[in-house]
Amino acid sequence: MSWIRKFTGSQGALEWAGVEPEAYDDLDVQGVSVRWLIGRHPETANFALRYFEIQPGSKTSLDRHVHDHGVFVLRGRGQVLLGREVREIGFGDAVYVSSYEIHQFTCRGDEPLGFLCAMPAPGRAES
Amino acid sequence: MSWIRKFTGSQGALEWAGVEPEAYDDLDVQGVSVRWLIGRHPETANFALRYFEIQPGSKTSLDRHVHDHGVFVLRGRGQVLLGREVREIGFGDAVYVSSYEIHQFTCRGDEPLGFLCAMPAPGRAES
Repeated sequence: MSWIRKFTGSQGALEWAGVEPEAYDDLDVQGVSVRWLIGRHPETANFALRYFEIQPGSKTSLDRHVHDHGVFVLRGRGQVLLGREVREIGFGDAVYVSSYEIHQFTCRGDEPLGFLCAMPAPGRAES
Repeated sequence: MSWIRKFTGSQGALEWAGVEPEAYDDLDVQGVSVRWLIGRHPETANFALRYFEIQPGSKTSLDRHVHDHGVFVLRGRGQVLLGREVREIGFGDAVYVSSYEIHQFTCRGDEPLGFLCAMPAPGRAES
């Protein structure tokens, strides 16, 4: 079944009907929230689409895993670590994080860094 | 290998370094362009991320196929046909188009309708 997650926020406060922000699942990380737009629950989607928001001064954990990511920045500015390289990112930049690449996203500046993250649906990463 | 597609445009003219707009592959459809941000060429990504832009008065073809889509509206306003239902869409709305759902996107108003479209990488739709 198809459906729409209606946007209910503004460009400075992104929110969607029926989507609650969740804490990032690494307890050592503060100031990072995740909103599942597609792929969270009973849908049989072949991929997931999530919105991450990182508060000023915060960053995601240093990650490395089998599933690849596609990231699209919607707001704010920051940096991404890809392997040994650090790159600046801002609105509209698309980042491809390949399988098993070390990566970490950091917010820079006074505004939260917000980005969409597409990945294979949980459990399908090896396909 | 990981990489970044740097955004080089503005919010009114979305462009990325090294990404050319391509015509939609249905010859009967005018006024629709596609930019492949992830998944076009040698990458082994498990999904594709594309940016579609539909000019005022235009629409995508009436489509129905095995692979599911995740759509995220970045600019403009329009309508999406999902099965027999027509819904209004605008900035921030996320649309999940399930496998074999009939769908069509139409631009409404004076501004192009632009959206990201995530899907399983070509050839992996059945996974």
